[in-house]
Amino acid sequence: MKKVAVIMGSKSDLPVMESCTKTLDEFGVPYDVKVLSAHRTIDEVITFCEKAEEEYDVIIAAAGYAAHLGGVIAAKTTLPVIGVPLDASPLKGIDSLLSIVQMPGGIPVATVTIGKAGAKNAAVLAVEIMAIKYPELKEKLKNYREEMRRKILEG
Amino acid sequence: MKKVAVIMGSKSDLPVMESCTKTLDEFGVPYDVKVLSAHRTIDEVITFCEKAEEEYDVIIAAAGYAAHLGGVIAAKTTLPVIGVPLDASPLKGIDSLLSIVQMPGGIPVATVTIGKAGAKNAAVLAVEIMAIKYPELKEKLKNYREEMRRKILEG
Amino acid sequence: MKKVAVIMGSKSDLPVMESCTKTLDEFGVPYDVKVLSAHRTIDEVITFCEKAEEEYDVIIAAAGYAAHLGGVIAAKTTLPVIGVPLDASPLKGIDSLLSIVQMPGGIPVATVTIGKAGAKNAAVLAVEIMAIKYPELKEKLKNYREEMRRKILEG
Amino acid sequence: MKKVAVIMGSKSDLPVMESCTKTLDEFGVPYDVKVLSAHRTIDEVITFCEKAEEEYDVIIAAAGYAAHLGGVIAAKTTLPVIGVPLDASPLKGIDSLLSIVQMPGGIPVATVTIGKAGAKNAAVLAVEIMAIKYPELKEKLKNYREEMRRKILEG
Amino acid sequence: MKKVAVIMGSKSDLPVMESCTKTLDEFGVPYDVKVLSAHRTIDEVITFCEKAEEEYDVIIAAAGYAAHLGGVIAAKTTLPVIGVPLDASPLKGIDSLLSIVQMPGGIPVATVTIGKAGAKNAAVLAVEIMAIKYPELKEKLKNYREEMRRKILEG
Amino acid sequence: MKKVAVIMGSKSDLPVMESCTKTLDEFGVPYDVKVLSAHRTIDEVITFCEKAEEEYDVIIAAAGYAAHLGGVIAAKTTLPVIGVPLDASPLKGIDSLLSIVQMPGGIPVATVTIGKAGAKNAAVLAVEIMAIKYPELKEKLKNYREEMRRKILEG
Amino acid sequence: MKKVAVIMGSKSDLPVMESCTKTLDEFGVPYDVKVLSAHRTIDEVITFCEKAEEEYDVIIAAAGYAAHLGGVIAAKTTLPVIGVPLDASPLKGIDSLLSIVQMPGGIPVATVTIGKAGAKNAAVLAVEIMAIKYPELKEKLKNYREEMRRKILEG
Amino acid sequence: MKKVAVIMGSKSDLPVMESCTKTLDEFGVPYDVKVLSAHRTIDEVITFCEKAEEEYDVIIAAAGYAAHLGGVIAAKTTLPVIGVPLDASPLKGIDSLLSIVQMPGGIPVATVTIGKAGAKNAAVLAVEIMAIKYPELKEKLKNYREEMRRKILEG
Repeated sequence: MKKVAVIMGSKSDLPVMESCTKTLDEFGVPYDVKVLSAHRTIDEVITFCEKAEEEYDVIIAAAGYAAHLGGVIAAKTTLPVIGVPLDASPLKGIDSLLSIVQMPGGIPVATVTIGKAGAKNAAVLAVEIMAIKYPELKEKLKNYREEMRRKILEG
Repeated sequence: MKKVAVIMGSKSDLPVMESCTKTLDEFGVPYDVKVLSAHRTIDEVITFCEKAEEEYDVIIAAAGYAAHLGGVIAAKTTLPVIGVPLDASPLKGIDSLLSIVQMPGGIPVATVTIGKAGAKNAAVLAVEIMAIKYPELKEKLKNYREEMRRKILEG
Repeated sequence: MKKVAVIMGSKSDLPVMESCTKTLDEFGVPYDVKVLSAHRTIDEVITFCEKAEEEYDVIIAAAGYAAHLGGVIAAKTTLPVIGVPLDASPLKGIDSLLSIVQMPGGIPVATVTIGKAGAKNAAVLAVEIMAIKYPELKEKLKNYREEMRRKILEG
Repeated sequence: MKKVAVIMGSKSDLPVMESCTKTLDEFGVPYDVKVLSAHRTIDEVITFCEKAEEEYDVIIAAAGYAAHLGGVIAAKTTLPVIGVPLDASPLKGIDSLLSIVQMPGGIPVATVTIGKAGAKNAAVLAVEIMAIKYPELKEKLKNYREEMRRKILEG
Repeated sequence: MKKVAVIMGSKSDLPVMESCTKTLDEFGVPYDVKVLSAHRTIDEVITFCEKAEEEYDVIIAAAGYAAHLGGVIAAKTTLPVIGVPLDASPLKGIDSLLSIVQMPGGIPVATVTIGKAGAKNAAVLAVEIMAIKYPELKEKLKNYREEMRRKILEG
Repeated sequence: MKKVAVIMGSKSDLPVMESCTKTLDEFGVPYDVKVLSAHRTIDEVITFCEKAEEEYDVIIAAAGYAAHLGGVIAAKTTLPVIGVPLDASPLKGIDSLLSIVQMPGGIPVATVTIGKAGAKNAAVLAVEIMAIKYPELKEKLKNYREEMRRKILEG
Repeated sequence: MKKVAVIMGSKSDLPVMESCTKTLDEFGVPYDVKVLSAHRTIDEVITFCEKAEEEYDVIIAAAGYAAHLGGVIAAKTTLPVIGVPLDASPLKGIDSLLSIVQMPGGIPVATVTIGKAGAKNAAVLAVEIMAIKYPELKEKLKNYREEMRRKILEG
Repeated sequence: MKKVAVIMGSKSDLPVMESCTKTLDEFGVPYDVKVLSAHRTIDEVITFCEKAEEEYDVIIAAAGYAAHLGGVIAAKTTLPVIGVPLDASPLKGIDSLLSIVQMPGGIPVATVTIGKAGAKNAAVLAVEIMAIKYPELKEKLKNYREEMRRKILEG
């Protein structure tokens, strides 16, 4: 099984993104975590992308403010890129949401919820994507759903 | 190859969504188009979801206003669901964007750009997702990118 | 007298929704509280709706983020559905407000204020609706108003 | 059967509100249409409210800009008041939406979609409310839903 | 000299509005403070307006949420009405700002800054208005400005 | 009777501001119209302000985009300044509204509705302000209101 | 004199950006125009940046939607980068504004007005920047201002 | 080497603007700090501008609320003016952002990020601008970038 790459723009995003990596752990999906900024380390982002297709099936890119990380990665690979807008600036993440989701035609970034809920959703979406290739994940997804359902029903 | 399902909430969304189906055509990816509303035909949406996994690898759900279509489909399948917010109401699609992207933790919808650019991006994203399973799509994606690049550089 | 159903998307919404149930208590209107998510327990939501008309006159649905709960319930019953947008995400409830109020033509959700004020207003609106059928509530509504008035005038 | 009052803030709102009155016609629910402004004819609004409960079961109030019509009516009656935010100002109705929906605790206005979709939804919501008292409307609502469903499925 | 009326929608607005009354004190302009809600005590608001012109030159109306207080007062008097939007709801006062400032043509409310800065500005604006009638206030305004200037320049 | 100064930031604002000057004409209030930009002719704005108090009782300042005209005038005179936000940029006037209304504490601008409705409201507000000094305007205001009322009631 | 680089994300931006190049023409500042997309031609953007410092003093980058062009260029050069947000998507340019201006700490993009006014302002800002190095531009800037002033004063 | 002027609208902005002056210190670029308000000390702002070109190459203007400081300075000098929107009001800086960035055509303000990140970015942008004239700053900018890069890569 190839891995998921979990890239974030700043070390300070790690606590929020833990709900992403913990969810990938629950599914037993392997992943690498990297801190790489589209602005401060753009060369490393590009180098990363050039070899990404060998190792990864999906890339998760989380960033706050004017969040260009997902867009730059999407421009350099043809892997599915999931963008997580972070609530890091005074604008509460609406800036990063629009910077990620409003990609012009031809280069999509699969955008999820702002913040912690999005960090988790990025992981689930990555697993859903990989499950079309690795059928063993299908069952795990159904169990995960069932588990969520039970928790709500049992209060 | 399984198909992509392209679901939209109203027949009036067809002209915008043509840029989705035309893009799928360019990639030779098979798809079905259905008009199904999360509110007006919720039973049919649910019936559709129950058999979706046999036929489809990815579901694209496009809707305007309070766009619940993607969320309801995501709740009923574990396939990757791509949501296209449409600019149908006086609020220019910010209502549908937030209704689609802000899914609570555990049930993601992969959200793309509002409107026509999003319709095209949904198709490209669907192909990127399927390409992790069908390697022949990988090459087509690279050609598609190269084509876009050439068009810009040639003016 | 039929009951009011007070549905919320997550157990964490209970503290805010207390100002709803306390208000229903003040009016002596019977109600049931249920935690049901449009996304995580959609089957239970649908099952609930199928039998709702026998027991309930009004349904109150409270949710945060992309709040589809009210819309899904409105799609499955013809009872009046009151939607309470909750301030649960970094966007302060504007996401849930637009997800609830911007229902497309034909399937309304009666939307009230974001957050705690909305939780109370949902209860009052439910009583106002039921009062067209149960005249004894009419007097209670007038007293409730008079009470609010007195509190303000007495400082 | 009591009537529905359809009040709008300006004669220029009539074309949009036709989709409200036409929907009430479809259900055979009697209604009165009045043009009354919360600001320009506040005395007439108040006089109207004082006798409203004898004649009406539900009041629909439509207004654009800083839309106070619903709030003033809600302050003066204990009937359920449905507010329709109109897209009349350069802000596309977000001003009237917030002016209507964000009522403080204790005096709700049941808010629906901005504009034409909301005009129709106000009518349907009024019928849903009246149906808890007049069971003959229940069947009509089910037929109305069925009709919408058929239109979508038949394309 | 006639007085300024300082009306606020809720007792909880008093701490913010202190920066209004303290500023009126600095100018020696007489004022009355009243807590009156456009929704919960609309009759008292109207009664107040009917006699306002004898006693007052300017009315300041402060409210949060869907802030109709200024609009209702403006509808019932021809005195200049100053509206102060308060930051009371999860939407941080954008709801009250739009509810106050977006008055339809013919009935203006003179709107100032959201929150505490607006409470002070309402007082200064009231004094500026009264100064066209009471020349003694003109000098006080110039001194007030000079005082602000000195504070900034002296650090 | 002193005059009203009607200042606008650009000649292209004249058509919208006609509903201001026409309303002043209806009241027989004298006024001067000037095109002066806070950015392109700041010296002329300042010179204008230095002599404004002799000639004018109220200043109306209309501008689009980052609308600083009202704020600069308010900084240089102690006359009441009414700001009209114009819908001139792609942001539909929300930029000029916030640039005008959100004045920091101590220097208010009396802000009215965005666009044409605001142009009229600025005139009415100017008359309301002047009426506290010139009682003959009081009667005209009451007639103006009565006229509006009659137009609505007669349809 | 080094040149200004005027880069835009799409050929369709040319008509709006003409007000940029025409303004540079008025100042006699040499410039190159290039169509380069941060997403569709990222390699060419990076190659361009690597040699930019020899030829250019300032880079103007105009883009709509999720506008990453300015950010990517700013990441790859230490020249001053001016970003022009374009009104290209249904969101009217608020998406591109936030994508450009909200750059995280350390890598600024000098952002100007959305749309045509911004295209012109980018040119003026570029000239202002270059004028600190080329004193002959200083005089031209003063004349340009004087010209604007005269046009307004002459009506 | 000429200096950078760092102007802020209020003494309370000093803590946020420290990240501006500290960054200028890192580059060894001389600067003056002044507290001057466009509204409360407009004469001093204008006097400052009249002599600014002799001493300064760049002006940084930081303000919250309706932030006119940058616009007024830009109107009075032809130096490049960098505007920093501050998160000072309940609207979290969106008011100051729009007040600064949306300057009408002809008088630009180079706008940076809201708040602390913007304070730092204003300094870096000032250095980038000055570096086209003082080549010794070029090297420092490259080192500054390299330092940022190293910090991220070393975690």
